[in-house]
Amino acid sequence: MKKLSLPPGTRDFLPQEVRSRNRLIQIIRNNFELFGFSPIETPSFENLSTLLGKYGGESDQLIFKIINSGDFLKKQKYKFEHLSQLGLESGQKFIEEQLNFRSFLVEISEKALRYDLTIPLSRYVAMHRDKIHFPFKRYQIQNVWRADNPQKDRFREFCQCDADIIGSKSLWQEIELIQLYDKIFSDINLPVIIKINHREIISGLADIAKIKDYWRDFIISLDKWDKIGSHNVWKEMIRRGIPPENLKKIQGVFNIDGNFEEKLNKLSAIILSSEKGKKGVEELRFFLKIIKKVCLDWVDLQFQISLVRGLNYYTGIIFEVNPKGIYLNSIGGGGRYDNLTGIFGLPNISGVGISLGLDRIHLAKKMMNPKSEDHTPLRVLFLHFGEEESLYANRLISKLRKKVIPAELYPKAEKVKKQFQYAIKQKIAFVISVGKKEIVKNKIRIKDMSKTTEEVEYDCIEDFIKEITL
Amino acid sequence: MKKLSLPPGTRDFLPQEVRSRNRLIQIIRNNFELFGFSPIETPSFENLSTLLGKYGGESDQLIFKIINSGDFLKKQKYKFEHLSQLGLESGQKFIEEQLNFRSFLVEISEKALRYDLTIPLSRYVAMHRDKIHFPFKRYQIQNVWRADNPQKDRFREFCQCDADIIGSKSLWQEIELIQLYDKIFSDINLPVIIKINHREIISGLADIAKIKDYWRDFIISLDKWDKIGSHNVWKEMIRRGIPPENLKKIQGVFNIDGNFEEKLNKLSAIILSSEKGKKGVEELRFFLKIIKKVCLDWVDLQFQISLVRGLNYYTGIIFEVNPKGIYLNSIGGGGRYDNLTGIFGLPNISGVGISLGLDRIHLAKKMMNPKSEDHTPLRVLFLHFGEEESLYANRLISKLRKKVIPAELYPKAEKVKKQFQYAIKQKIAFVISVGKKEIVKNKIRIKDMSKTTEEVEYDCIEDFIKEITL
Repeated sequence: MKKLSLPPGTRDFLPQEVRSRNRLIQIIRNNFELFGFSPIETPSFENLSTLLGKYGGESDQLIFKIINSGDFLKKQKYKFEHLSQLGLESGQKFIEEQLNFRSFLVEISEKALRYDLTIPLSRYVAMHRDKIHFPFKRYQIQNVWRADNPQKDRFREFCQCDADIIGSKSLWQEIELIQLYDKIFSDINLPVIIKINHREIISGLADIAKIKDYWRDFIISLDKWDKIGSHNVWKEMIRRGIPPENLKKIQGVFNIDGNFEEKLNKLSAIILSSEKGKKGVEELRFFLKIIKKVCLDWVDLQFQISLVRGLNYYTGIIFEVNPKGIYLNSIGGGGRYDNLTGIFGLPNISGVGISLGLDRIHLAKKMMNPKSEDHTPLRVLFLHFGEEESLYANRLISKLRKKVIPAELYPKAEKVKKQFQYAIKQKIAFVISVGKKEIVKNKIRIKDMSKTTEEVEYDCIEDFIKEITL
Repeated sequence: MKKLSLPPGTRDFLPQEVRSRNRLIQIIRNNFELFGFSPIETPSFENLSTLLGKYGGESDQLIFKIINSGDFLKKQKYKFEHLSQLGLESGQKFIEEQLNFRSFLVEISEKALRYDLTIPLSRYVAMHRDKIHFPFKRYQIQNVWRADNPQKDRFREFCQCDADIIGSKSLWQEIELIQLYDKIFSDINLPVIIKINHREIISGLADIAKIKDYWRDFIISLDKWDKIGSHNVWKEMIRRGIPPENLKKIQGVFNIDGNFEEKLNKLSAIILSSEKGKKGVEELRFFLKIIKKVCLDWVDLQFQISLVRGLNYYTGIIFEVNPKGIYLNSIGGGGRYDNLTGIFGLPNISGVGISLGLDRIHLAKKMMNPKSEDHTPLRVLFLHFGEEESLYANRLISKLRKKVIPAELYPKAEKVKKQFQYAIKQKIAFVISVGKKEIVKNKIRIKDMSKTTEEVEYDCIEDFIKEITL
């Protein structure tokens, strides 16, 4: 027999994990609702054409494609036979074409698994535009799939929690989203830093340095700031071929320091000659002015000039959330995108949103508190003695359940010791015995499994219910 | 621009649908916990080899397969070029092989989407056997995918809610599961009939009639009883080639009537000569004796000799749930299977479980009550006048949210009429105005959108909170 296994990058979740993940989801969902967002859900797979070419770079390869149902080669076979009749050469040419990855792919696959929640949102907004009243505040908590190389904190199936506002350019949305992060991470009890930047500042710097041709290299190098430091970012840029004389025009950026406001002031002087850059700085100034006056209880904000956020579609303020004091990739991020639904035929709709990575938040909680709380509900087990006793127990169990106390009968009349073992393994809180003697006396005996004391006799189940629901 | 669409058989869910679906899930989840079940989750895709050949019949074709990541044709290309060198003929032979569905499939796909929750459960139990303490009571609420032909109540992506007990042969589990159904459908407020049968009774009848060679035809015909009536089932069997003289040995079955007990008594006389059949009748007798004595508040039970339940793996009592008074396919089902983990190398583990189809339950609720309740939470909107007012509003909003009242600021200072339009479209309950005048007077003005009355002045937000949380 082959050893049983799961596909790489996927996981089974044991009961305690499902319970603690569901608790996190509940906190996030409640806060999304508190902030006025409404839930939507989209299918796990979309048309391949909806997803391909939307994520930039090599991302298309990371999208999981689904093979068309039925005999997907039938059409191929037909074509082959047809061409073969025209002569061996054309038949062979056809085969060679078929062995070309992209053209063949389109023939055998029309669907692909959701890669993120943002492109499906854009498709949703463009498709249901007539039913939507803008500004549209939606949240979505669903799995996404990516054929990335699996790592400690990178999975091929993971859960994203997104909240977006579509159809409003107001910067008060960015303020609200930071307050939303603040409330969520406070409720989750996970200390975090939120890094802030503006995409137009990065574009502005590239404009000033006149290094548009090196945009990719510029971005990729900048993104390494946190890991290798600004000095090495400079070196990396030069190594990648960006002319030093160009870089010198924005040299000041590499030594920028101070608090949010001080950094903004210094940057302001450097970026003066770029309209885009100025707009970015102004928006961040407004953001900073307001955010200082609203109440934030929990998160730390940090202006970080090197923050890029890989995805292509951002155009305004961008965020990234990192847990404090542990080494982990970002657990959330987001920002403003000005033309996301344009690709689906609905131009000039501005959106802004945040995302939370449930799996990494869960991991961060576990890393910060390895002996995490147990969310197993308090359960009651009735011992199984025989038919008469079980029927009696069954009625008491129904009473407990009506009072929302999980209760069950042990499946069969096995040795009492074995039944108690089950109770211990299942972390059951109370074991109740109702034997023939108790039925006659109209009593029940209850053992509190958290104590070493003996069983206690109760007059009726109601007394016990009263005691444990106090 | 191509018209936007979704893959056939999939759906977007609008806010109200997500909310009412989540409410159903919450009811089901709470009851699973109340009955002592613990949640697990398994990955959306499993190794193809885990799923293929497990569901009988043509089901393998209904499993969605995922194309291997990377250039899945690289290996093929290499093979082709290698063989081509040996001569055109072997190259061509290779191509023909490749155009053979099954052999090619295995080469380009190693993963497939979950088809149900039962086979993943078996794989889970076999794989984690060392960590599991039996009897193992697990529940699982996750999506499954089937490449079926889409219909009104048949989707290609749908949500199943399963509860199973693994590792106990006690018939008290069947009793518990019926009680679980009873509680869930009572809480959901959906009237249902649960049909009951026993797999060994069907096998026993086939044994007595000596029609084992016609097993498939026997089952398929039997399954149509509900739709075409027993007389036509008899005809259908004969049409399919089952010899009438054999069928006559079980003729009585086709006229069986009466209540559960009467049907059992009549059947008992017919099936006497089959050991399997006798066992089935005895188990149902015990089931009936107990179920009559435990309290069922909601469901109707019906013994239905023609109930088959398509899946191959059932071996004992089987159930099927149908909504009363509306025409819809079954919304739930289940039964006992005696050797499900055997296929994964862990033999002789008996299990029994039930499943609920969330999508059909949701549909049934909508059919029974087209003007379904609105689960939109009560929301409060603050009008947006300007920066100073918005900052003031922001503090009040935080206070409301701390009291778990959804509240938000309209994104920007647009015409008041437009802001009210948003409130109406979003079904917002209260609109609050705090202008410069109110700030000076230290008051707030609140409009109850459900009433035609004017705005009311409040001294502070706390008074308002007290009023609406009463």
